[in-house]
Amino acid sequence: MASSEGPKHIATGPLSDEEARWIKLVKIDYKDQTGKARTWESAERRSRPAGSAIDGVGIVALLDNAATGAKDIVLQRQYRPPIDRVSLEIPAGLVDAGETPEQAAVRELREETGYVGVVTETSPVMFNDPGFCNTNLRMVHVAVDPSRPENRDPQPRLEDDEFIEVFTHPLADLWNLCQKLEAEGVAIDARVGTLAEGVLLAQQLKL
Amino acid sequence: MASSEGPKHIATGPLSDEEARWIKLVKIDYKDQTGKARTWESAERRSRPAGSAIDGVGIVALLDNAATGAKDIVLQRQYRPPIDRVSLEIPAGLVDAGETPEQAAVRELREETGYVGVVTETSPVMFNDPGFCNTNLRMVHVAVDPSRPENRDPQPRLEDDEFIEVFTHPLADLWNLCQKLEAEGVAIDARVGTLAEGVLLAQQLKL
Repeated sequence: MASSEGPKHIATGPLSDEEARWIKLVKIDYKDQTGKARTWESAERRSRPAGSAIDGVGIVALLDNAATGAKDIVLQRQYRPPIDRVSLEIPAGLVDAGETPEQAAVRELREETGYVGVVTETSPVMFNDPGFCNTNLRMVHVAVDPSRPENRDPQPRLEDDEFIEVFTHPLADLWNLCQKLEAEGVAIDARVGTLAEGVLLAQQLKL
Repeated sequence: MASSEGPKHIATGPLSDEEARWIKLVKIDYKDQTGKARTWESAERRSRPAGSAIDGVGIVALLDNAATGAKDIVLQRQYRPPIDRVSLEIPAGLVDAGETPEQAAVRELREETGYVGVVTETSPVMFNDPGFCNTNLRMVHVAVDPSRPENRDPQPRLEDDEFIEVFTHPLADLWNLCQKLEAEGVAIDARVGTLAEGVLLAQQLKL
């Protein structure tokens, strides 16, 4: 939970379509499998570049921990106004017009964490909550070489409205970290939580 | 992509706060880490029961495949109007007032797939996209015993506006399935995609 000195809601209220700058509600008329006309309500970002099929990228940045021999993942703690909580997340960001997902991933990782890395894999487009909204992202895997000079003492370059705490944790223990941080009042981003869940299941079932 | 005979959008347009029944936009006034007043825009469901901290559950239903010896996961294909595509998902649903997440998971699994199972694990609360909206869920793991009579020929009990195709696939191969289905035009739900990604990373890195 945010402390009394930390960030927190002052007030919340309805937001009209005229006033909203970043997001919007959409009414969808569609026909179902039987040809019957139905309606659905959806939420969307207004920021997706024209012609682009995706909003953003999530970054699975991995580095070898020389001291432990483990593979560590780069994580963040960040206050998120929609949930009025600090959230455990991976580095992420919106894709700018003209950028590839891979370019956005390398740029956002450097801006938010200071780490410089090399892309090793790009996921399919993933939809965050497709019964509710159209927001989506590609997960981009980035290898971070800890022996590179920039990565020895990484220096984020944050905007003046960004407050992000960066840390690393063994990927093999990510599920335990999610449970521990939730018990401390931290919210778990589903992209982190389900990644941890996949690791856990592979370990438990020896996949 | 939906075929010309399949479900598809007829028209989309703005949705006003007055007209919306299921979702809403929220304007948030908050103070940041430095005490400065800022605003944020968020989307929310209107359906979360009063006093409840979560919207829904996702169900990781696993069953032993007697023929292959593999652990299979129960999956769905379902048309989702917000993205105008068929989406690869796990069974999921909203939690009713008075229900525990575990009760909702067993009920939704039975309704959507016909499978009857036993809860083995419940995840932390996971937030789908906490920079954009407050929607969240718990992931509930359910063991499905294929020798139970109800599970030999499972019979979903769908509402008349639900069109869900149920199938199973080896959990160890879920990442490959996501890539194959995306190539066929199916959208990948992030809760499935990142679960697959965790399995993949654990396999690649021998976690």
